[in-house]
Amino acid sequence: MTRLGYLGPEGTFTSMALDRWPAADGAERVAFGSVDAALAALRAGEVDGAMVPIENSVEGGVSATLDALASGDPLLVTGEVMVPVTFVLAARAGTTLADVRAVGTHSHAWAQVRGWMGARLPEAVYVPTLSTAAAAETLGEGHEARTAAAGPPPFDAAVCAPAAATLHGLEVLADGIGDMQAAVTRFVLVARPGSMPGPTGADKTTVVLFQRDDHAGGLLELLEQFAARGINMTRLESRPTKASMGSYCFSVDIEGHVRDERLGEALMGLKRICSEVRFLGSYPRADRQRATVGPQASDAHFAAARDWLGEIRDGRA
Amino acid sequence: MTRLGYLGPEGTFTSMALDRWPAADGAERVAFGSVDAALAALRAGEVDGAMVPIENSVEGGVSATLDALASGDPLLVTGEVMVPVTFVLAARAGTTLADVRAVGTHSHAWAQVRGWMGARLPEAVYVPTLSTAAAAETLGEGHEARTAAAGPPPFDAAVCAPAAATLHGLEVLADGIGDMQAAVTRFVLVARPGSMPGPTGADKTTVVLFQRDDHAGGLLELLEQFAARGINMTRLESRPTKASMGSYCFSVDIEGHVRDERLGEALMGLKRICSEVRFLGSYPRADRQRATVGPQASDAHFAAARDWLGEIRDGRA
Amino acid sequence: MTRLGYLGPEGTFTSMALDRWPAADGAERVAFGSVDAALAALRAGEVDGAMVPIENSVEGGVSATLDALASGDPLLVTGEVMVPVTFVLAARAGTTLADVRAVGTHSHAWAQVRGWMGARLPEAVYVPTLSTAAAAETLGEGHEARTAAAGPPPFDAAVCAPAAATLHGLEVLADGIGDMQAAVTRFVLVARPGSMPGPTGADKTTVVLFQRDDHAGGLLELLEQFAARGINMTRLESRPTKASMGSYCFSVDIEGHVRDERLGEALMGLKRICSEVRFLGSYPRADRQRATVGPQASDAHFAAARDWLGEIRDGRA
Amino acid sequence: MTRLGYLGPEGTFTSMALDRWPAADGAERVAFGSVDAALAALRAGEVDGAMVPIENSVEGGVSATLDALASGDPLLVTGEVMVPVTFVLAARAGTTLADVRAVGTHSHAWAQVRGWMGARLPEAVYVPTLSTAAAAETLGEGHEARTAAAGPPPFDAAVCAPAAATLHGLEVLADGIGDMQAAVTRFVLVARPGSMPGPTGADKTTVVLFQRDDHAGGLLELLEQFAARGINMTRLESRPTKASMGSYCFSVDIEGHVRDERLGEALMGLKRICSEVRFLGSYPRADRQRATVGPQASDAHFAAARDWLGEIRDGRA
Repeated sequence: MTRLGYLGPEGTFTSMALDRWPAADGAERVAFGSVDAALAALRAGEVDGAMVPIENSVEGGVSATLDALASGDPLLVTGEVMVPVTFVLAARAGTTLADVRAVGTHSHAWAQVRGWMGARLPEAVYVPTLSTAAAAETLGEGHEARTAAAGPPPFDAAVCAPAAATLHGLEVLADGIGDMQAAVTRFVLVARPGSMPGPTGADKTTVVLFQRDDHAGGLLELLEQFAARGINMTRLESRPTKASMGSYCFSVDIEGHVRDERLGEALMGLKRICSEVRFLGSYPRADRQRATVGPQASDAHFAAARDWLGEIRDGRA
Repeated sequence: MTRLGYLGPEGTFTSMALDRWPAADGAERVAFGSVDAALAALRAGEVDGAMVPIENSVEGGVSATLDALASGDPLLVTGEVMVPVTFVLAARAGTTLADVRAVGTHSHAWAQVRGWMGARLPEAVYVPTLSTAAAAETLGEGHEARTAAAGPPPFDAAVCAPAAATLHGLEVLADGIGDMQAAVTRFVLVARPGSMPGPTGADKTTVVLFQRDDHAGGLLELLEQFAARGINMTRLESRPTKASMGSYCFSVDIEGHVRDERLGEALMGLKRICSEVRFLGSYPRADRQRATVGPQASDAHFAAARDWLGEIRDGRA
Repeated sequence: MTRLGYLGPEGTFTSMALDRWPAADGAERVAFGSVDAALAALRAGEVDGAMVPIENSVEGGVSATLDALASGDPLLVTGEVMVPVTFVLAARAGTTLADVRAVGTHSHAWAQVRGWMGARLPEAVYVPTLSTAAAAETLGEGHEARTAAAGPPPFDAAVCAPAAATLHGLEVLADGIGDMQAAVTRFVLVARPGSMPGPTGADKTTVVLFQRDDHAGGLLELLEQFAARGINMTRLESRPTKASMGSYCFSVDIEGHVRDERLGEALMGLKRICSEVRFLGSYPRADRQRATVGPQASDAHFAAARDWLGEIRDGRA
Repeated sequence: MTRLGYLGPEGTFTSMALDRWPAADGAERVAFGSVDAALAALRAGEVDGAMVPIENSVEGGVSATLDALASGDPLLVTGEVMVPVTFVLAARAGTTLADVRAVGTHSHAWAQVRGWMGARLPEAVYVPTLSTAAAAETLGEGHEARTAAAGPPPFDAAVCAPAAATLHGLEVLADGIGDMQAAVTRFVLVARPGSMPGPTGADKTTVVLFQRDDHAGGLLELLEQFAARGINMTRLESRPTKASMGSYCFSVDIEGHVRDERLGEALMGLKRICSEVRFLGSYPRADRQRATVGPQASDAHFAAARDWLGEIRDGRA
């Protein structure tokens, strides 16, 4: 039976991403307290895959995931899931908005509801928790009994996903409290190498690029490797390499699959000029949108050019 | 008397940055619980400046600061300070390493000591706090009395700066526990517009660039505006604009001062092709390293070229 | 009275260009035997302007003109004229096609009728002459008497412009014999500095760029100075600098006037990175087609960006 | 027996290039009156190769050769020869400098001695001839008898190569009269496809690039295909495509052999984005200078990158 790790506990947005992942049906779900723990278990073979947040996350995702993928034993992204982010303010039955003196939630969620809080609960104290779901759980029935806590929860209300409020029997004091409507978090399913999905025509590829040295114009040279092959980039994030202040690598998403000719050639070009290129996977896009391909950059155009070159090299043209 | 805000409480790495800022001598120091709060007070005129972390921070800095500067009323960075980051594990007198069951600290600090923790205290539970200094304060003498806490602190030891341990009368169980030796955090002093320091020859300029649209090659065009004027970039971070998934702006540090000819021309070029350019200040570099200037890109070269153009336009050449 | 030199004698395509130049009405026309001679007379003040071929010429133009403008005392192009190129085969009255054993014309004209000659007069010998008009003149009435020639002309027919055949009383044996229909030659009116026409919105600017050194990618850097300011290039010709084999300068036409902001800035950029930039004039396009201006590259955009920069430098923004 | 065509007659600089071409030893030499004629004979199979001038020529070379290679049945350059260009003023025995009223030579040679002529023979009339060697031949012994000329030669002295003066029994009135000392002309040996020399490490490749359309920045895109693969360009000439005024193709020399990985990939890239790429050959450089190879652009680097990509595609990395 397949075992899939995720950033838990049950009720996190990551658990909702796993709900939406078709291949997770029938799999055993294993919650982890951090992205690092989930990916370590994956590397150790204790689970067969792991769902983790990667972009614009509310659960502490982006940096932790990007950094964990960029170093250590190779792992591959094999799919992505988008989850709309909706926050509620939830509390034990009987609590009213006027009763709320302290609010518990993950720091990233707190950052996304500051506007609402400033307007409606300007006096409320913020108490950080390990996750939004953990905040809900702390207020849930039987928490004190289960954990032998020394006293009542250190906050009166939790900011969490609607599902987490339901799961822990909380009442919703207010919903849709996120400052950004239409917020979405992107999650990726990560696996060990050896299980790359084939091209579908609507794929995305993720790589991490380490510059050979930090010379002026270095990033320009990297981007020109994509431009020269008609490749569209959809995300670029610089991340410190941790070697020294100001030393960066670049985490990049590009449209297309590593088996597409243009991507293969671009990645070879980057491999030559970078000190390291870390391939993190080619996988179908969640939105099924077909890749933007630059003029004359389809596989057919590459094949025609290769035939032409072969004829020239053989003296036939 | 000058009032300077900072990300407090006393004992944070930010407070150490303020200690190192010469102009802070004799100023009144005002601690804030978050970067947002400090910058809001600055915008409201309650303080005259604010010291906040901006890069590779251990106090939750980077994103919060970058985002707070990139929107809202204009603020300017007027200086930077580098602080070496050293972590200790501190506890109440009499506590031994073997007694530590739970560790409190800010999530960013926790991320930087995971290696040491995994090796030496693999069973310890992590408890998030608002800052490293807040973790130390919770363990400090008289905390329960001061705060009327319902029970003992929810952790036995804190990960914090050495100064925070001293401040709160804690014993150091282990020092130098950061996974990266030589880690440094960069802090910036932010002020309201109207107080930009003049050029020193060793300056840095920070801007936020918003693309007109997310077309392929858009970032390439932005970087070419720097390259065409011989300007060196020292930091690039993409940040979501929050308008929609995949919509980014770029936070960029470049070498030189806005009054340098090459920077002025490049910023005008970016102003034309971007939907928005947000200028966040020109200020002396903490390391006093003179700017790298591309070939033929000094002010003298620009002035000579301008004279030449004037002669041509006037029909004198 | 204005004196205008031109590549003569009367009947050349250049003389036809002068016919089409409105400002030449009422001017004294002075024929010269070569572009060099015409431009030397202009530099010496013997004439006030000179009409010479510059592009795709049939009269030996391009190289001679480009090189003569690129060195020596400064001269400016102040206008351009397009002349359709139509060739006839002309001979003395009574000559038939079957009688033609040798054909005289300028080598550039010969190059443009080779197809017709190969098909219709494959046995005809080619005799080079100083110009197409000179070939016609040699066959004209009274040539032997005028020049005390030792014998009959060394050819039986001339390839020349229809006007030259008429001028010298020749019969046209065949017309439209050029291998390319719709051929056009571009002529420029050259003057001494001090008389640059103002911007019309449909202008062209000609410059010669000398690279600082022949490093790889050098031309790319030059072209990026145009691209960074949204400038369209309409002609690029590499010309040997004559210093050594493989040392080139670039003769370039760009759309717009030197008084346009974007051109001024681009030329200053080139002035900085080139060893020399030779400005050869801004002048109205013959076809009155308005300049292609890159996105956000109009004078208004430049002015707005300059205002914005001024506010930042003054601390007002 | 091998038959080699060349731009004759004997005594031209092209004939001197053939003298220097080792493989021409023992071959039958066939003189042609024009580059076109020589290349037409080669295409027709009447000769096995043809030596023609290609760069900075004194014999009318460049344009005629570039254009003849760029259209018609494919031909390949298989080698190059450099010939120093030295001009003498030669005349029949007994002629003195003071006797010279008219000077015959090819127009390109005339262009290169104008300085000397202006200083020493300012009154001399110029008479164009088909080649420098033809001018010498016209003054040679027995010319009138051989050609049944109607009178004496139309000039008193010829500008030609020293060898041509010797060949035709002329006296040298002045030598080294070229305005540029150290002038060199580059000649190429052209053959039908099927005989491309192998890589030597010091090779040059010639191609003609036709843009898909004349959009702004089009040339920039072509050059970036070279830059992205670390390829150095040694010559770029724009040539009108003859379709319409302002429509150009680019004749380009790059360092390296088509069998080098970086060239193969760049040519495929150009093939994709150009409307046509005409390959004109890879051949050893006359100066035996090894190719400049960009960082990480050797065949070994390409092979390593290909292996790496193969492992990724196969799921092994």
